[in-house]
Formats: sequence, structure tokens, C-alpha cells
Amino acid sequence: MTGLQPVDFTKVSMEGAFWRERLDTVLNATIPSQHVRLVEYGILDSLKLPQPPPPLRIPIRNHGMTTQVFWDSDIGKWIEAASYALRHRRDATIEAQIDAIVADLEKAQAPDGYLNCWYLGREPDKRWTNLRDRHELYCAGHMLEGAIAYYQATGRRKLLDIMLRYIDHIATVLGPGPGQKHGYCGHQEIELALVKLYRLLGERKHLDLAVYFIDERGRQPPHYFDVEAVARGDDPKKYWFKSHEYSQSHKPVREQDKAVGHAVRAMYMYTAMADLAAELGDAALKRACQVLWEDVTSKRMYVTGGLGPSASNEGFTEDYDLENDTAYAETCASVALIFWAQRMVNLDCDGKYADVMELALFNGALAGLSRDGTHYFYENRLESNGDDTRWQWHTCPCCTMNVSRLVASVGGYFYSTDEDTIAVHLYGGSTARLDAGGRPVTIRQTADYPWSGKVRIVVDPDAPATFTLKLRIPGWARGETMRLNGEPVDTAAKTSGYVALRRAWKAGDTVEIDLPMPAERIYAHPDVRADVGRVAIRRGPLVYCAEQPDNGKLPVKRLRLPRGALLEPAERGDLFGGIVTVVADATAMETDDWDGALYRQTPAKTGDAKLTAIPYYLWCNRGPGQMLVWIPEG
Amino acid sequence: MTGLQPVDFTKVSMEGAFWRERLDTVLNATIPSQHVRLVEYGILDSLKLPQPPPPLRIPIRNHGMTTQVFWDSDIGKWIEAASYALRHRRDATIEAQIDAIVADLEKAQAPDGYLNCWYLGREPDKRWTNLRDRHELYCAGHMLEGAIAYYQATGRRKLLDIMLRYIDHIATVLGPGPGQKHGYCGHQEIELALVKLYRLLGERKHLDLAVYFIDERGRQPPHYFDVEAVARGDDPKKYWFKSHEYSQSHKPVREQDKAVGHAVRAMYMYTAMADLAAELGDAALKRACQVLWEDVTSKRMYVTGGLGPSASNEGFTEDYDLENDTAYAETCASVALIFWAQRMVNLDCDGKYADVMELALFNGALAGLSRDGTHYFYENRLESNGDDTRWQWHTCPCCTMNVSRLVASVGGYFYSTDEDTIAVHLYGGSTARLDAGGRPVTIRQTADYPWSGKVRIVVDPDAPATFTLKLRIPGWARGETMRLNGEPVDTAAKTSGYVALRRAWKAGDTVEIDLPMPAERIYAHPDVRADVGRVAIRRGPLVYCAEQPDNGKLPVKRLRLPRGALLEPAERGDLFGGIVTVVADATAMETDDWDGALYRQTPAKTGDAKLTAIPYYLWCNRGPGQMLVWIPEG
Repeated sequence: MTGLQPVDFTKVSMEGAFWRERLDTVLNATIPSQHVRLVEYGILDSLKLPQPPPPLRIPIRNHGMTTQVFWDSDIGKWIEAASYALRHRRDATIEAQIDAIVADLEKAQAPDGYLNCWYLGREPDKRWTNLRDRHELYCAGHMLEGAIAYYQATGRRKLLDIMLRYIDHIATVLGPGPGQKHGYCGHQEIELALVKLYRLLGERKHLDLAVYFIDERGRQPPHYFDVEAVARGDDPKKYWFKSHEYSQSHKPVREQDKAVGHAVRAMYMYTAMADLAAELGDAALKRACQVLWEDVTSKRMYVTGGLGPSASNEGFTEDYDLENDTAYAETCASVALIFWAQRMVNLDCDGKYADVMELALFNGALAGLSRDGTHYFYENRLESNGDDTRWQWHTCPCCTMNVSRLVASVGGYFYSTDEDTIAVHLYGGSTARLDAGGRPVTIRQTADYPWSGKVRIVVDPDAPATFTLKLRIPGWARGETMRLNGEPVDTAAKTSGYVALRRAWKAGDTVEIDLPMPAERIYAHPDVRADVGRVAIRRGPLVYCAEQPDNGKLPVKRLRLPRGALLEPAERGDLFGGIVTVVADATAMETDDWDGALYRQTPAKTGDAKLTAIPYYLWCNRGPGQMLVWIPEG
Repeated sequence: MTGLQPVDFTKVSMEGAFWRERLDTVLNATIPSQHVRLVEYGILDSLKLPQPPPPLRIPIRNHGMTTQVFWDSDIGKWIEAASYALRHRRDATIEAQIDAIVADLEKAQAPDGYLNCWYLGREPDKRWTNLRDRHELYCAGHMLEGAIAYYQATGRRKLLDIMLRYIDHIATVLGPGPGQKHGYCGHQEIELALVKLYRLLGERKHLDLAVYFIDERGRQPPHYFDVEAVARGDDPKKYWFKSHEYSQSHKPVREQDKAVGHAVRAMYMYTAMADLAAELGDAALKRACQVLWEDVTSKRMYVTGGLGPSASNEGFTEDYDLENDTAYAETCASVALIFWAQRMVNLDCDGKYADVMELALFNGALAGLSRDGTHYFYENRLESNGDDTRWQWHTCPCCTMNVSRLVASVGGYFYSTDEDTIAVHLYGGSTARLDAGGRPVTIRQTADYPWSGKVRIVVDPDAPATFTLKLRIPGWARGETMRLNGEPVDTAAKTSGYVALRRAWKAGDTVEIDLPMPAERIYAHPDVRADVGRVAIRRGPLVYCAEQPDNGKLPVKRLRLPRGALLEPAERGDLFGGIVTVVADATAMETDDWDGALYRQTPAKTGDAKLTAIPYYLWCNRGPGQMLVWIPEG
């Protein structure tokens, strides 16, 4: 395997206030409340086979499909998130809840190992007949990730063994061999789950199955999904989403060079492609990942790390199509972007990947969770007229457990190592216990990140050791300084966004980094129509927004930020336990003298106004109101 | 009847180049080609009953309904447009085509008078069971308008008599009496058609039926459409459009104060309401029209006179929601806005109504027809990335005949009279033969409108006569001058947008008007998010746009128009037979130095560029390409 290895979150204790608060909320409120929702919405009842299954609850759109077909995945993701919680502290209630689920799954599993509760309970004759639409392997993948996490948290193997039998069964049905179905899932997920399994148990067959799914995808003619449709009596031309771009199966993955289709599917697939590029040393896969990375991040990503402007396909449309008020930007897609970014930075330690990982983490993904931890955004707007509010649940609750499993394991995105290297990708108060080539090292970060860019890193090898410490200088930083044991370090020597310090490290060695954090303007590429004439505000890793509660009675959407106005950070201990806002002397368009006119020859008058911006991830926690990320200049 | 009476188009000879060109195109190309389409698409075959009807051709969306249910209306509208053409010149081919249709209708008509070919041919047991969705009376209304026009053009009564029998039958089935269905059509249209019939024949029962439909609409509880749904076994709560706002039947019409729902339905209804306000002297109806007029024109209308931002309901959404690149702005809605505006200016001779009539006529409605007269826009964007193109036909061809019947009768929007008044609402080279209180007058306009605002009007009463000549001063005009027989007239004395000249007119009296036509900027109300920081260009009644073919290789969407840049009209004899463009020294955003970045701390560099704008109605006649009405400033 090439590249760096991520340091597992279990080795990283989150101590800084920012992540401590989010982590505590997720552990204490979010994860338990998610189990309540799973019960309340009958999702856990769906496992109780072979008794008659509960009635369908929640139809979805017009696809002729109910979200119930996904329920196995929601359960698997909750098990995963809850298992991550157990790594922080054991909890008998949670373990009992998981064990109860496992008991139901054990009973539900068919003798041949098949385990999809929708099909077992409701359409037992229809298994494997609609890989395109029915999320069959997607459910298996999430349940597998849950099983792995639970085993790692508790040593209990039952669910893992259940899933191993299921995976073995899947591998008999689907594959390249004669007599096998040469299919793959319409919603990518199992590929990356199988890599996780391979990395856990080291059994080559699991890696091979992931490779098969990735290699088979998009082969044509004929296209598997079309043949499959005809076989069940459907007209492939009547596919709701029209094109196999939706599931990124329009061509073999190594040939893909544009991010198209459903955003979460894409991100899960690109994540698996990067995993396999690392495991196999597959240069074509790596190259495809790099090309796709450039496409996404240079033409198709919101400034918040959100992905997908379009509700109709929950995904990508065209280059630079990034409308703000209708932004779809599904929370799951930002979470999965973090997964992919992490794989990419481990494949090639380049700060451009970690910059996006940090961006999505502090903005697009975190915005999906309310301050109180029990409400969620599925879609993440970058402009609101006041109608938006987070949901207590969602008929398709995929985003809920994606954000909880992410936050519960957030420490796992901070560090990577190889034989000879410790790489620091993210900053924040933490203590990490890791090693470089078997030589144990404790890394202690003290920082008030993201509010301050001053980071103190104490490097404590158990015994003196020579290795390279790579420290990321964020792409947004200017004028950073670094000292090693008090002596200045030339950060201009950084390569690919990291300063590499190679020395014989000894206990107490201290690196001090100062990343200046002025509040700054961001402009979008001119072809992003939605942002022409507008400016966004950033400070450190945080993207800001102007929200109504901080801006008095004046409708926020009438604000304009003159190009010369100074942006000033302001500490606000009274907000959200203590944050930094950004204030500026702005202008506001006046409407009093329009007298009912809709169009006129003279532009709007403007008056003075104060603009106060808060971090975007905190918006919509004080009731609905107008919000703007991209503020008109002028 | 209160107010002014419009002077019929048959009394107005269009002589100015602008309207002559459009009229000739519609008469020579559009109307004949529309008959070809009606044949080609099997629409005329649908009348051939009781032989087995042809198979369904064209399904529509997911409403579970085919556009074939509308076909009677398309035929009726073509008969109307073709009949208007006959008023310009008789044509044996067209008359034979119409007579053939009439022969089929005569055979199709049921003994009780019922005449809806969809139901007669395909669902004979289902008549009157779904007034909400099936356009049953809408079809009757358009066929009635066609019958009236054909009778007026040729004196042939057969189709009129057929429709009179149908209307009598409708009046037995639907109405306020015991044993009658207290229903009304989900798509308003028959109301205004019945007023036309009343005005033709003077039979009170026809007016009463229109009044019934308008008065009954929206009465609840219970709501007729819900009762009707239950009766046919549907769940009223599963109504695709969710709310009766869609058909403006959410409350009685006199109580309505917001323009909601489907835009064409709304416009047809408001037109009928204004008609009835005039016929009945109904103050509550008049007031509702005025309130709705303010709502539409001060909060919900595009700068081009387009209506309806939303594809999902083909209609209205919220105040100031006027997105440009996704504008729905159905051609039919702009045409119907002209109908309504005409009724309003005749109810109250106020220039604000004629301003909108002129705006929609020269911009939003005309844009629906290609230069060659045989291609159509259904949706009218105010911003294009180059993917838009007019259709040769449309599965729902309602816009095609709406624009042809409008242009074929365009002279009918120029003048109105009463006993004592001749009002001139629109300018353009024409000769009108009209009368004030029975005293014949010829009005000859010489003008190169809309390219020039200089208009010469010769007033030739057959015998000297005293009356008031009202001359509209467009709301966009500044610094206009007027002379009567060479003597200056004080235009500041205008009331409600008209200069009223009352005198003893004698042959040869001449009024010369000079409406200066500088190219000017237009700004939108600050709450129109889509237009913040942008400016549109207008000259006289024409709204302009920047289109790719006139702006070289630079993508039009990168242009910016500095606030100080002079807008200069330029005569271009080489374009479209001679038009006036607007040119300006602009800037263009450069992308060369972005190096693949999507966001950065420095704004885009700009370089000099020339901007050339053409009249919006002419866009997309030279192949697809980018287009902008609202241009970013800066």
C-alpha cells in the first residue's frame, strides 16, 4: 500500500473547546436521539422478520420507491456512529440497543447468507433484480461499516460474522465469472466498505470484490442496468434519471473526467477509487481521482465545501452552476467529500486536499447539524429568505448519521503517518498517540482553533527518534510564522503545502505556528453567475454569513459590502459559548422611495448599515431568518 | 357599459414598417404553417368522430393527462387567428381548411349539443366529471372565440350556431339552479369568450353564464373541485398542484388580492373580471382588478412583461421572485397580460395600463415568435447560457396560436373611443377609421416607431366635430414635446398619462409628438434578488439584451456595464432589416489568471470591452448563444 496511513480517531483525544463541544453534543444528544428516531419511525421494526413487516410509512417522490428500502443502511450507520461513541466511553444502554439489533439481524438472515431486510420482508422473490435503483448493496455496505466499527469498539464479532456470511453470498451472486450477474450497485458504498473490511481482516477476497465492483462499473455495451431493466419488464429508456451519469456508470471509472450525477454516489465512488489506488498502486485509478478532484474543486464546489446545486438529481449539473438560494448541497455529500479528501491527502500529501477536507469539515458538513445536536439540514442553502429550518428527522435520514459518525470520529482526520513521517493535516487542541515506523510518539496540540491561528505543538517521542514532521500550512494562510524550539523556521520552504521538519526529535520539542487570521474577502471565478458582483467572507477555515438575528431589523438581503470596507474580527463571548464574528461598515439598499415601482431609471438609494457575520455552520440556530453567504458589493 | 370601447383591428391598417413586417410574417408564414402542424400532429384528425379516434400521441408530464385533451382549444385558436387573417385578405385555402374543420365539428356534435371531441371520442361517459383538470370549458371557450371570429370574417354562421347549441347545453348542466352542477372550469377562458359572444349577439343569457362562472368560482366550503374529485374516486388531497390557488379558485374572485397560481389562468380570469366590471358596473370586481393589477405589476412581473418564474406551476411564486436564467415567463401569459391591460385601460383610461400593454407587446409576447415566424418560445428566459432555442412546435402548442392571433389583430390595441373621446394608446404607422359618438374620423399616424419617438398624427373628421383626443405619453418618456398644428402643447397638463386635447377638430389637424428615445438604464426594486447589482437597458418601449452574436468571442456573461458608461443608440441597417442597437464601453471579467482556482482573495481582473445590445424580442434568431437582459454593473 502506497502513501500515508491515517491515525485512527481512537488515538486522538479532542481537547480544544471547538471540537470538544461538537463531540460532546454528538455523544450526549445526537447519537442517543437518533436511536429514538429509529424506533419512533418504525425503522428498527423493519428488522423483525419473519413476522409480518410493518406497513410502508414514507413514500419518496415519484420514483415509485419508498425510503424504507434504505432502512438497513440507516441502521448500519447508526451502529457505526454509536460504536464510535463507545470508543470514547463504553455505554451499556447503547450496547444493549446494538445487541438487540444484531439479534434481529441474526434471525432475519437467510440461510444462504442474504441479508437485506426490505427484500426478505417484502419482496423475497425480487432480490438482485434492480441493482440500479434499490440500494441493495448500499445497505450491505453501511451495515458492514457498522459491523466493523462495533467489533472494533467491543470485540463482539456477531454482527461482523453475519456480514461476512452475507458478503460471501454476494460474492457468489455478483462477479465476473460465468453464471454470475455482472452487476454492481446503483448507489456506490459497498466498495469503500469492502476496503475497510480488507484492512481489518486482511482477506484478499474482500479487496477483490471491491475491485470487481469498481472495474465492472460502466462497462458497456450492453449496460448492466439496461439489461436488468428489460429483464424485469421495465423500459430502460424510461429511467427517471435518464442517464447513467446519475450513478457514475456512464463509462468505466478510469475514463471518467467530469464529476456528474448524484453527488453522494460520486463521492463514495471517488473515495473507493482512491482507496484502491493506494491498495493496488493503480496509476490509472490514481490519475482518474486527480482529474476528478480538479473538476470538482475548480468548477463544481460551493465555497462552503457543499456539492450539488440541483435537487432534481441531488447532484452536479454544469461547470460553475452554483446557485445560492436553491443550493442543494446535501450534507452527506460534504461529509463524503471529507472522506475522499482524506484518501487523497494520504495518497499524496498535498495541502490542496487537506484544505478542502478542512473547508468541508468546518463549513458544509458541520452546517448539517444544529447547535442542539438533534436537528439536521439535508439541503444546505447559501442564501435564505427565511423559510429554512433544520429538521428533527427526514424521510430519508441519511445525512443524520453521516454527520454523527463524522463528528464522533473527527480526530481521525488530523494525522497520518508512514514509516518515517508524521503529517499534521488539521489543527485543534488534541493529544494524539501515534507512531512513525513503530516508534511511539505523543503529539500534543494546544490551540484555540479555529478562532485563533496560534498553535503550539509539543512532540514527545517515547525515545528520541528521527522522522519527518510535516505541518500543513493552510492554503488560506498568509504571512504565517513558525518556530521550532524558539528558532524561526522558513515556511517558504514548504512543499505541496506542508513544511517538512526532519530531525532527531526528543521529548519536549515544541513547534509554534502562527497562522494570521484576518477576516478576508473571497471572490468566485467570473463564470459563477450566482456570485458575480458578490463577495464572501472568510476567516481562517471558517466561511462566514450574514444572518438576520445579528443584523437588526434591516432585511439582510438588502445589505451591500463596499469593496473598501474594513472587515474586523470581533470576539463575542455572548454568542454560542464564545465565537469570533466579523463586522464591517456596510451599506443597505433603501426601498421607501420606490412607491410601488418594480423597475425605474434610478438605482436604489443606499444608507449606512453595520454588517455582522457569523460562521456559516452556526446559521439557523436562532429561528428562521434571512441569510447570505455571498453579499453584493457596492 | 362603462369606459371606452376598443377600436377593432379591422378598422386599423398597419402601415409602419415594424408592425407590417410582423403582420406579413404572421399572415404569410405563421398562420399557414400552424395549419400544417395541426395536420402533422394529428390534431385535426381528433375531430373525425365517431370513427375510432387516433391513438394518443403526446403524454404530458406526470399529471396523468395527455395534451390531446386541449386539442379543441388549439383548433379554435387557429380558426380565430386564421379568421383574423381573412380580415386582412380573403383566402380560399384558409376558408376551405376552416370549413372542413367545421364540417367535422358538425358531425361530431352530440344531439344534446355537447361538443368536446376528447370526451366524445375517448371518454363519452366521463363528461363533466373533472372540471378541475380536463380543460373542458377552456376548449369550448377557445372554439367559441374562433367561431365568433370566423362569422365576423366571412358571415358564415355554421360554427357559431354549433357553438351556440353547445353553450346552451353547458348552461343547462352548469349553473346555480337546483339539479345543476355548481361547477366552473379549472382553466379560465370561457368567461371572456362568453363576454365576446354577448357583445356580438346581445343575448343576456350569455353574459349571465359568464357572471355565474365568475361568481361561483372559489365558493366554499365545500370546494367544487374537491367534491368532484371524491365523486370520481380521487383523493382531493392528492391534487398534483396541492392548492386551489393554482386555478385562482382558492377564494371568491372579488376577495383576491394576490396574483397566485398558474399565470395564464390568472390572466384570462382577470381579463374576464375586467370585462364584467365594465359590463355590469361592478365596483367590487373593478376594485379587485385594480388590487391584482398593482400586485402583478409592482411585485411579480419581469421587466419584459413576462409573468411567472416557476416551471412547477407555470406561474407565480412570491413577491420579487424573478430569476432570469430559469424564468418561465410563458408566452401565453404575456399575451394574456396584453388582453387584461387592454380591458383595464378601457375601464379607466390610465397610461399605467397602456404602458404595460406596450411593454408586453414589444417584448415578452413578441419574443415568443421567431423572426421567420415558424418557431416559438414557450418559456422566455431573461438570461441564457446558450442552450435555448425556439421550437418548431410544442407538445402543448397553446403559445403558438396565442401569438399569431395577437399579431394578426394587433391594430386592435391602438385606439379606443367613447361618445366624446378618441384615445390613442399605442404609436406606429397606421390608418384608423373610427368614430366618436357616431361621427366618423380617420386618424393617420406616421411614425418609425419603436425606432423613433417622432409621431405625426393627422386627424381627419369627415365633418368638423368636437371631441377629446387623448394621446398617451408613455411612462418611460422624459422631455417629450407635442405640437398641435405647429403650436406647442403643454404635456405637463397630462392626466393619468394622457394629454387630452379637446377642440373642434377639422380635417388636416395635425399633432406632432416627439418622445425622446435615449438609451436608458433600468434598475429593479432592491428585493428582486436576481437583479441586485445589475442593470437592464431600455430604449423607448423596447427592452434590450446582450446576445453572443453581437459581442464577438467574449462570453456575454462576463460583461459588466460601468455605471458611468454612456449608452449610445446605433442604427444598424444590416440587422433584421434595420433596427437600433445600443452600444456602450463596458468591461469584461478576465479568467486567464485564475489558474484553475474557483475561489480566491482577489476579485477578477477586468479589461475593456464593447457591449452591443439588441431588442430582446429579436434574440435567439441567429443560433443559440449566451444572452443577458440584466447585466452586472461594475
